[in-house]
Amino acid sequence: MNRTTTLELVALPGLPMIQPGDDLAALLAEGYGRAGIEPREHDVLALAQKIVSKAEGRSVALADVTPGPRAVALAAEVQKDPRLVELILSESVRVVRSRPNVLIVEHRLGFVMANAGIDQSNVGPNDGTERALLLPADPDGSAERLRRRLGELLGTPPAVIVTDSFGRAWRRGTQGIAIGAAGLPALLDLRGNPDLFGRTLQVSISGFADEIASAASLVMGQGDEAQPAVLVRGLAWTAPANPAAELVRPAAEDMFR
Amino acid sequence: MNRTTTLELVALPGLPMIQPGDDLAALLAEGYGRAGIEPREHDVLALAQKIVSKAEGRSVALADVTPGPRAVALAAEVQKDPRLVELILSESVRVVRSRPNVLIVEHRLGFVMANAGIDQSNVGPNDGTERALLLPADPDGSAERLRRRLGELLGTPPAVIVTDSFGRAWRRGTQGIAIGAAGLPALLDLRGNPDLFGRTLQVSISGFADEIASAASLVMGQGDEAQPAVLVRGLAWTAPANPAAELVRPAAEDMFR
Repeated sequence: MNRTTTLELVALPGLPMIQPGDDLAALLAEGYGRAGIEPREHDVLALAQKIVSKAEGRSVALADVTPGPRAVALAAEVQKDPRLVELILSESVRVVRSRPNVLIVEHRLGFVMANAGIDQSNVGPNDGTERALLLPADPDGSAERLRRRLGELLGTPPAVIVTDSFGRAWRRGTQGIAIGAAGLPALLDLRGNPDLFGRTLQVSISGFADEIASAASLVMGQGDEAQPAVLVRGLAWTAPANPAAELVRPAAEDMFR
Repeated sequence: MNRTTTLELVALPGLPMIQPGDDLAALLAEGYGRAGIEPREHDVLALAQKIVSKAEGRSVALADVTPGPRAVALAAEVQKDPRLVELILSESVRVVRSRPNVLIVEHRLGFVMANAGIDQSNVGPNDGTERALLLPADPDGSAERLRRRLGELLGTPPAVIVTDSFGRAWRRGTQGIAIGAAGLPALLDLRGNPDLFGRTLQVSISGFADEIASAASLVMGQGDEAQPAVLVRGLAWTAPANPAAELVRPAAEDMFR
C-alpha cells in the first residue's frame, strides 16, 4: 500500500433532494462540476445509504404494510410500530436482541444492526404519508453500477462506497461503516507486511472501507445539515478490489452473535 | 454542530522513534514547525497509542514477567506466550472470549478488545529483548496532558485523541477507535436535532472521536509506513468536551458482553 500523507474530504455541493428513479450518478457528476472537481485515480466517493435507497425507490408507505402476528407480538415487546416491525422482519433472517426500544437483527445481507437499517427519519416531506426507507437491495451492486455510470460521465470512475451509521457492541455512539463498495479493497489484508523491526504485524486486516465511511460521516453530518455525498481524495491502494460483503463476518466465525 | 464541508488530514512529518521519557508534545510541536502548520481552533491531533505508550514508558520486557498458574493454563488454550498472557490478565478485569489464537478481554478501562491492547510488534529494535507495550495507564489523562502542553508550545491547543485499532463484533477487519480524548466531545449527542422534515433524528448519538480515529487511521498506515501523528482540520463542534471513557458502554447497558 502506498503512503498517504494527506487526505482531503469534500462534500459535493448542491445535491437536490433525491427522488425515486433519479439518475443519481448524473446528479453526482453535476456536483463535481459545481465544485470544480476534476476526477482522479483513487478518488473515493462516499454516498449516504439514504440517497442510494431513495433513488432506487426503496421507500415504503407504512399504510401499505400489514403486520403479521409475529410482528404484532414483537412490536408490543419493543414498543415500535407493528408495520415497521413487519418491514424489519421481512428484511432480516434473525432477531439478535430485542428489548423495549431496541431491535437488533441480522439483516439478510449479514449486517447485525438495529431495525434492519430501516429509517423513518429524513424519508420524505411531511405530506401525511408515513414512509420507511429500506437499505438498497444489493448495496455492493449499487456501488458497482454507480461507479460504472460515473466513469462514463466523468471519464475516470471513482471508487464508490455506500455508507450507513451503525451502533456497536461494547461502545456507545454510532460509527460510519460501508454497506456497499466497488473499486477498492473494502477489506484490506496487510498480513505479512513486516513492521519497522521486521516482525510480522499482528493486527493487520483493516476494515478499509469502514474507516473511509467513518471519515466521510464526519463531513456528511445529520439532519438539516446533511451532505450525503463526500469525495475522499488522497488514499492509495494496490490490493485488488473486493466488495463490502467481505466486511461481514460469517456467522461461523463470529463469537458474538 | 457547525457544518463541515471540507476536512483535511495531514501526517506530521519527521517524528523520531519515540523513547521512554521523551517529551512527546515537544516532538509533536516540532512536527508542526517542519510542516509549516499554524495551529487553529478545532484542530484535532490524533496520536497512535503506541507513541503515547512508549513515551510513558509502558514497555515491559517479557523476561521480567513471571506467569502465574492461570496465565499458564490460558496460554496453553490460546497458544500464546504465557508471559504475554500474564500481562494481558494483569491489564484486564475479565476474559470475554478465548479460543486458539484469540483472547478477547475486558480491559480494566472497560474496552472489550483483543489481548488487552498489548502489542508485541513495533515495540523496539531487535536487540534480543522481547518486549510488549501496554496501553497508557490513563489515556484520557494522557490526551489532556498532551493537549495542555501543546497549548503552551503552540499557543492554541488542539483537541487530542489517542487512537488504537480494534476488532469488531460481527465485522471483519479492524477499525480505528479513540481510547483517549481531550478538548472535544468524544461522544456527541445529537438527539433532539430535528431532521430535514422536523422528525427527531433516530440514530443520533455519534461516536465522534471514534470516527475521527478511523479517519486518522487511513493516514497513519501500519508497519514501515507508520505515521503516528495526524492533524485533522476542518471539524467544528459546539457541544462541551467529554472524554473517551464516555465511548465505553457500561456493562449494565451492554447486550453483547
